[in-house]
Amino acid sequence: MAVRLSDREHYEALLDKYDTWMFDCDGVLWHGDRPIEGAVQVLDMLRKRGKRLLFVTNNATKSRRSYKTKFDQLGIEAHVDEIYGSAYAAAVYISSVMKLPKDKKVYVIGMLGLEEELRNEGVSYVGGTDPADCTLESFSLADFTPDPDVAAVLCGLDTAINYTKLSKAFHYLHRDPSCRFLVTNEDSTFPSAHGLLPGAGAVSAPLRFALNRDPLSVGKPAKTMLDCIQAKVQFNPKRTIMIGDRLNTDILFGQAGGLATLLVLTGVTSEENITGPNSSTIVPDYVTPSIGDLRLAKSS
Amino acid sequence: MAVRLSDREHYEALLDKYDTWMFDCDGVLWHGDRPIEGAVQVLDMLRKRGKRLLFVTNNATKSRRSYKTKFDQLGIEAHVDEIYGSAYAAAVYISSVMKLPKDKKVYVIGMLGLEEELRNEGVSYVGGTDPADCTLESFSLADFTPDPDVAAVLCGLDTAINYTKLSKAFHYLHRDPSCRFLVTNEDSTFPSAHGLLPGAGAVSAPLRFALNRDPLSVGKPAKTMLDCIQAKVQFNPKRTIMIGDRLNTDILFGQAGGLATLLVLTGVTSEENITGPNSSTIVPDYVTPSIGDLRLAKSS
Repeated sequence: MAVRLSDREHYEALLDKYDTWMFDCDGVLWHGDRPIEGAVQVLDMLRKRGKRLLFVTNNATKSRRSYKTKFDQLGIEAHVDEIYGSAYAAAVYISSVMKLPKDKKVYVIGMLGLEEELRNEGVSYVGGTDPADCTLESFSLADFTPDPDVAAVLCGLDTAINYTKLSKAFHYLHRDPSCRFLVTNEDSTFPSAHGLLPGAGAVSAPLRFALNRDPLSVGKPAKTMLDCIQAKVQFNPKRTIMIGDRLNTDILFGQAGGLATLLVLTGVTSEENITGPNSSTIVPDYVTPSIGDLRLAKSS
Repeated sequence: MAVRLSDREHYEALLDKYDTWMFDCDGVLWHGDRPIEGAVQVLDMLRKRGKRLLFVTNNATKSRRSYKTKFDQLGIEAHVDEIYGSAYAAAVYISSVMKLPKDKKVYVIGMLGLEEELRNEGVSYVGGTDPADCTLESFSLADFTPDPDVAAVLCGLDTAINYTKLSKAFHYLHRDPSCRFLVTNEDSTFPSAHGLLPGAGAVSAPLRFALNRDPLSVGKPAKTMLDCIQAKVQFNPKRTIMIGDRLNTDILFGQAGGLATLLVLTGVTSEENITGPNSSTIVPDYVTPSIGDLRLAKSS
């Protein structure tokens, strides 16, 4: 049973218990371009109390640098080295764990932020935002010359997804079973400013289905993301809490890493998803309606 | 164990045994714009011997009329009332089985042929080839006014698939669980002239994944397709044979309908898929390398 946080004592106890606070962003700190009410004040309070803040997001459309710009625009203090996105984690995984040879390339389905992180880690790529791949013209294998250096396909959320990109990615993976198949994350949806939209998991679903092959996912709940953070930041898992809105990514990620977990109900998970006969088997340590609720502790 | 057809007696016995011959098309009669060697002669021979021919295809990008044009271009005799495509089956299902009220509409992910069949059956639709939906511009729910009359989403192969179409279809299905979710077929791939490409099942995979919901498929192997044929054509299943290149659509379809089945190896199924330790549990009655092999019977 998750502990329902509701009064000042609950929130104070939480603040005493955890030193490192990892936050999911979309649906926890903001909806699209609107901050969640009270989020700014809560983060400020945590900083004043000396807490270490880390922002751990599966959103792979932004680089850490462009994420920092988003925090700035929303008036939320954040530093690039506090931000861990699945685009960054994917680039680090490809360069440092998979150790893709420098003369090999990644075929990318994804956006500018993913490309930026790959460049920062020295990973060569094709596809992505290349205008030749951002087209609704019909695709024929007869007109396609595969790049012989492509040794991996990486797929993230791409709102310019189209049949040419899917066909090229399919072809690279189908012609050579040793070609690696990676996805930034498998979120089925994401909370946009005005409601749910298909997520990165939906964008890569055609490849999984056509190939009958599962990719390696580097985003939450995969351990790859935690490995990426632990390589840069020292923290005690027993005094760390992961706050998120999605059970099968954020909460599972925290649990797999031995962290405490706090579910907020401002994103994709609703009260019905955690109570009643069809509730999830993933149970967070704590539940609170909104991150803004932690302001209650402030008045102590 | 499937019977391997190899000599004249085999093919002659097949011709004696079956009166109605149902053919899959892509990968059986042609690859893209190239007829399979000998296919034209074999179909001619079957007609001369008084066999009834039916062409049963999951390809939903063409209407029966445009399919007829394709047969003409390839020099293969065919008549519109011999052609059963999943676009036609979907339109018949929506108008005659589902009985969609005339004031309701279908949101379509699909191409001209699918739209043509819907119009022929008097089904109203939005989406499809509408230029407003064929775009790679970013999509926002804030700018989207859902059509209140949409009561079903129908998804087929669409080489202009994009994030706007997926988001609209997702939104219709997500906002209203009673909105029907149909797909023309679930083929993971299809054999183009120059190799495999992602199929209709891959195009609808983002919706299945984002919604965690399975659609009703009207194409092979679903019984819906056979119901559609049986409503128009009298045939004795015991004297009918289904010829196809894909085990989990063509062969399963034939078996479910009590038909004999003949697998050809000119399409997506290879020798390894039907022999060895990882072979399919779907076993056709007969196997022959190519439909062209039936020419052997002609010389008798």
